Amino acid sequence: MATAIEQSAGAARSAGLKLAAMTAKAKNSALIQIRDSLKANAEKIISANQADIAHARQENLAESLLKRLKFDSKKLQDVCDGIDSLINLDDPVGKTLDATELDDGLELYKVSCPLGVIGIIFESRPDALVQISTLCLKSGNAVLLKGGSEAINTNKILAEIILQASVDAGMPAGWIQLLETRQDVAEMLKLDKYVDLIIPRGSNEFVRHIMDNTNIAVLGHADGICHVYVHSDAQIDMAVKIAVDSKTQYVAVCNAAETLLVHKDIAGKFLPAVAKVLSEKGVELRGCKKTRKIIKAAAAGETDWRTEYLDSIISIRVVDSLDEAIDHINEYGSHHTDAIVCTDSKAAAKFMEMVDSADVFWNASTRFSDGYRFGLGAEVGISTNKIHARGPVGLEGLVIYKWKLIGSGQTVAEYADGRKKFKHKKLNKTFNI
Amino acid sequence: MATAIEQSAGAARSAGLKLAAMTAKAKNSALIQIRDSLKANAEKIISANQADIAHARQENLAESLLKRLKFDSKKLQDVCDGIDSLINLDDPVGKTLDATELDDGLELYKVSCPLGVIGIIFESRPDALVQISTLCLKSGNAVLLKGGSEAINTNKILAEIILQASVDAGMPAGWIQLLETRQDVAEMLKLDKYVDLIIPRGSNEFVRHIMDNTNIAVLGHADGICHVYVHSDAQIDMAVKIAVDSKTQYVAVCNAAETLLVHKDIAGKFLPAVAKVLSEKGVELRGCKKTRKIIKAAAAGETDWRTEYLDSIISIRVVDSLDEAIDHINEYGSHHTDAIVCTDSKAAAKFMEMVDSADVFWNASTRFSDGYRFGLGAEVGISTNKIHARGPVGLEGLVIYKWKLIGSGQTVAEYADGRKKFKHKKLNKTFNI
Repeated sequence: MATAIEQSAGAARSAGLKLAAMTAKAKNSALIQIRDSLKANAEKIISANQADIAHARQENLAESLLKRLKFDSKKLQDVCDGIDSLINLDDPVGKTLDATELDDGLELYKVSCPLGVIGIIFESRPDALVQISTLCLKSGNAVLLKGGSEAINTNKILAEIILQASVDAGMPAGWIQLLETRQDVAEMLKLDKYVDLIIPRGSNEFVRHIMDNTNIAVLGHADGICHVYVHSDAQIDMAVKIAVDSKTQYVAVCNAAETLLVHKDIAGKFLPAVAKVLSEKGVELRGCKKTRKIIKAAAAGETDWRTEYLDSIISIRVVDSLDEAIDHINEYGSHHTDAIVCTDSKAAAKFMEMVDSADVFWNASTRFSDGYRFGLGAEVGISTNKIHARGPVGLEGLVIYKWKLIGSGQTVAEYADGRKKFKHKKLNKTFNI
Repeated sequence: MATAIEQSAGAARSAGLKLAAMTAKAKNSALIQIRDSLKANAEKIISANQADIAHARQENLAESLLKRLKFDSKKLQDVCDGIDSLINLDDPVGKTLDATELDDGLELYKVSCPLGVIGIIFESRPDALVQISTLCLKSGNAVLLKGGSEAINTNKILAEIILQASVDAGMPAGWIQLLETRQDVAEMLKLDKYVDLIIPRGSNEFVRHIMDNTNIAVLGHADGICHVYVHSDAQIDMAVKIAVDSKTQYVAVCNAAETLLVHKDIAGKFLPAVAKVLSEKGVELRGCKKTRKIIKAAAAGETDWRTEYLDSIISIRVVDSLDEAIDHINEYGSHHTDAIVCTDSKAAAKFMEMVDSADVFWNASTRFSDGYRFGLGAEVGISTNKIHARGPVGLEGLVIYKWKLIGSGQTVAEYADGRKKFKHKKLNKTFNI
């Protein structure tokens, strides 16, 4: 007997198959209708959100969480702007990625297509529901959504509006489904038969929990332990600027730097300079022994190298060589974003080659690691996976491809017995029948 | 305390980081040295294999397994030829996949790189060890290998030769490691910290077992339940040819057809024609009720639609429409390879769009689903995954990419406060510093 969640997932799978065949025009019309319907229902949405906020206040939710929970007319405008820019992006589906003439009248095409069903689990922010479900629609994927329970009223009305508007515009009914309980999520994590990818959005513990409890592929990152390494030949001013921006431009995000590595030959000059600016900005310094011989700092150790502070704290370590810096990053980092500041292009090339991270930067702040800054148009998430999609992921992370072969009656026997031979000639052609 | 397998995996990870920085030339030199050393040690290898075979005979291993276990001078020549063609392939590492000027002096490159560490588990065939480890080397990946216990002597000598020859050619020592017991494999499946991808090669049960027991990504397929659908307007001769080739050209492989779907309007003409040829080739026919009204066949039911016979048996079902055929395939198939035979291009387009399989063919045998036939140069495996790589997978399945950003001191603060604006201009340039 199928559970309710299995039924929802099965319905999403069927809807996804239909969505896969929708044209870019049809999907964009649905996005327009969603945007307009969200605007038309602004009052309803905001009052549902006020109910959530009132309830959250009763429950003494922290002020920072209340802020994330809030969905006002400003947030509504933001998500509608997001939909507008999404409409203007190229359809990621139906792109010919490769074409080969295997033989006369036997043409092979590699064509992009949706993944199928995406499971999205996010903590309180209701704007994430709109953003992520429209990304799924644009890329032709059905979606199972579970938001934070604090936002239940807001999420319900948003999902209803998106569903109704998209179905009115001709999309298949089952493509978006809201899960309601943690039990639902636990069940979904087992449905590898129906769900092709899980995207969790939330704290490290939350993401780590999801990753550890499913054998469905997970796109995301748990930790963001990013480093800035200042090499012996760095320009001091540039190194200070980059270190300070990487740490302080926004401390509560995954691409903020947590550890500063400094080559011993430049530590005497660089550390006092950077310490001055960081201290002025209220950043707590924690340093290794060698660091503390040069500047005043609390003691840093093993735990610090493995900690994502997400706060105005930075750990500092003096290293003997570029190799030691690379080893430190590969050992203690989270394979997210790491930067080197140096003049020598050979040192930069080695760093970018040997540091096993999604984003490796030379003379730029770690904070650039972001889908919008990278010019991807939309950001599905930042992945520290080694497969499928890595670093900031745009719509292309929500598609895969299939192989379409157009023949005229060919059989393998003819090639196996030598009557025919493969040509394997690359074609500069898009799939079109 | 790290276990022996954790230590092996950690050593593989370190070696992988070094391998990632090896040039195409260095990797190809190592491949040449491996090939030459295999040839030079032919006698040793064959005698180790004979010991395995003698032992297997004592254990009364089935003749088909003995055949797979055999590694003679013919097999040795085959794997050496495989290495030669691998040497001639482009290096999949270091390709610039995308380049964007974010702003003046701030250039972003998406560059292909190895995955890191691949875990390969394969049943008896020792030639798979050579093939897969050289694919890993070419793509800059370290590899943990576990072969069938029947082939232990052959596998050991092969791994030793490959390791020695490659290290002599300058490759890092830890890049190839042989696991010895099932317990080793069970441990490896837990090491998501070190292992980036698992590739299992063997029976469906074997692959399914691996997939169900790890949260590391698995590249492969468990079942190959492939279909040929004969549409109402198909040319009878072509449909017979394709159905017969798909079923009989080689019955024991994943891309052989297991079920034939036939549109009701053509069943009366097509079924007798195909039944005649299939019966002549000794294929057992199992049909639905409607099929059995037209031709003589055993009764087929639910279990048949879900069975990969891998044998001279075919199930046949008459359907009322293209939609019913598509629904059948998506419900009962294994998302591997499915073919339509028809004249109408609209029916073909719909089939190829709506059938949720890695390979969708129009008027060609399912047996074309293969890396060599597709012209991929080398085949890592056939994947029914929806993420990373799908269908026949070449070397590109063993690489991912990293984002390399080259700046000149930029900080995000300058863009956040409006002093600077992103350009996001596509560059036609390869990464080169």
